[in-house]
Amino acid sequence: MTRTAPAGDGTAPRRRGRPPRAESADTRDRILAAAREEFSELGYDKTSVRGIAKAAGVDSALVHHYFGTKEQVFEAAISVAFAPALNAPLAVADGPVDGVGERLTRFIFGVWENPTTRTPLLAILRSAVNNETAAAVFRRLIAAQLLRRLAEQLDLPDAQLRAELAAAQLVGCAMLRYVIKLEPLASADLEQIVARVAPVVQGHLTGP
Amino acid sequence: MTRTAPAGDGTAPRRRGRPPRAESADTRDRILAAAREEFSELGYDKTSVRGIAKAAGVDSALVHHYFGTKEQVFEAAISVAFAPALNAPLAVADGPVDGVGERLTRFIFGVWENPTTRTPLLAILRSAVNNETAAAVFRRLIAAQLLRRLAEQLDLPDAQLRAELAAAQLVGCAMLRYVIKLEPLASADLEQIVARVAPVVQGHLTGP
Repeated sequence: MTRTAPAGDGTAPRRRGRPPRAESADTRDRILAAAREEFSELGYDKTSVRGIAKAAGVDSALVHHYFGTKEQVFEAAISVAFAPALNAPLAVADGPVDGVGERLTRFIFGVWENPTTRTPLLAILRSAVNNETAAAVFRRLIAAQLLRRLAEQLDLPDAQLRAELAAAQLVGCAMLRYVIKLEPLASADLEQIVARVAPVVQGHLTGP
Repeated sequence: MTRTAPAGDGTAPRRRGRPPRAESADTRDRILAAAREEFSELGYDKTSVRGIAKAAGVDSALVHHYFGTKEQVFEAAISVAFAPALNAPLAVADGPVDGVGERLTRFIFGVWENPTTRTPLLAILRSAVNNETAAAVFRRLIAAQLLRRLAEQLDLPDAQLRAELAAAQLVGCAMLRYVIKLEPLASADLEQIVARVAPVVQGHLTGP
């Protein structure tokens, strides 16, 4: 963040002494944070590059300079939110293959249970359901990156379809528990859900 | 529909001769059809009672007279679309219990594969993801009616949670196949999907 408080000795803010590279990384981060906030609150359709720029305290031209179109800002903003998820399949494989279902299930619910990571996920889901451009970004990130990596590790026929059906169980749980808030699912103990869902995810991934 | 073509003999439209009861049923149906169309195209937030009235060719006061608030119009409009689904669990039970998973799976995919029933479902899903009022309507219809009826027939501990996790698998499949259009799931042969999904739904409903 560049808008830090003045240094403790009362002199000008320390950021003045930073090299340009750090300054520009700060600005990028600030734009991405503002973009996530705007997309989360307003959805894809109602979010504008101008609104993001305003929220980040920069000129719209700077947003275009760093990221390009609104679609590209969206992809960049949610890629950051997805970064842990995109690394997950590799971690998921860090263990016996008969535990991959439970590891993936715990990882996905972990992301949704944490309010910090839930907000951008909700934004992505809302935008993807309502807007074809946002759905395409979602497809690229989820299908081409997360699920393909998982499928490659399975090395089975129909591995990509298996990974998508496993994802469908988890996406559906997230929809009904966190978005629609169906009871008793919305308030059920996480361990009870994992006990029922993990074997299903495992079955999709490695079952007959 | 009241806007029928004039009768074949060139006289005034036949509807003039209808009793008031039929006339008002026609008007109700026309309003509901217009409401489904508006909610599908615009989503819950952007749809207005005024817009529905205009599309139906009636005064807004008449929409309020028949249905009340926008939320009530929404519930009435989607209840019609849900009518076959609300009767489904009963039909689902019309057979051996070890086939309930496949019957439910085929029923749900059947509704989604049919463009006529897919459109209102998409409208409901989009609205429910984006608007808390619409989500509440969705909860009442899905949870209180469809899933509770299914759960009652199962007569098992945690039957409602089981029904919701089965629904989660099907909702997730619908999301990824029909809304996000992830490949290969979006183009996969329906029988291939049913073969993988029906046992999972069965397991949730009646498994250990």
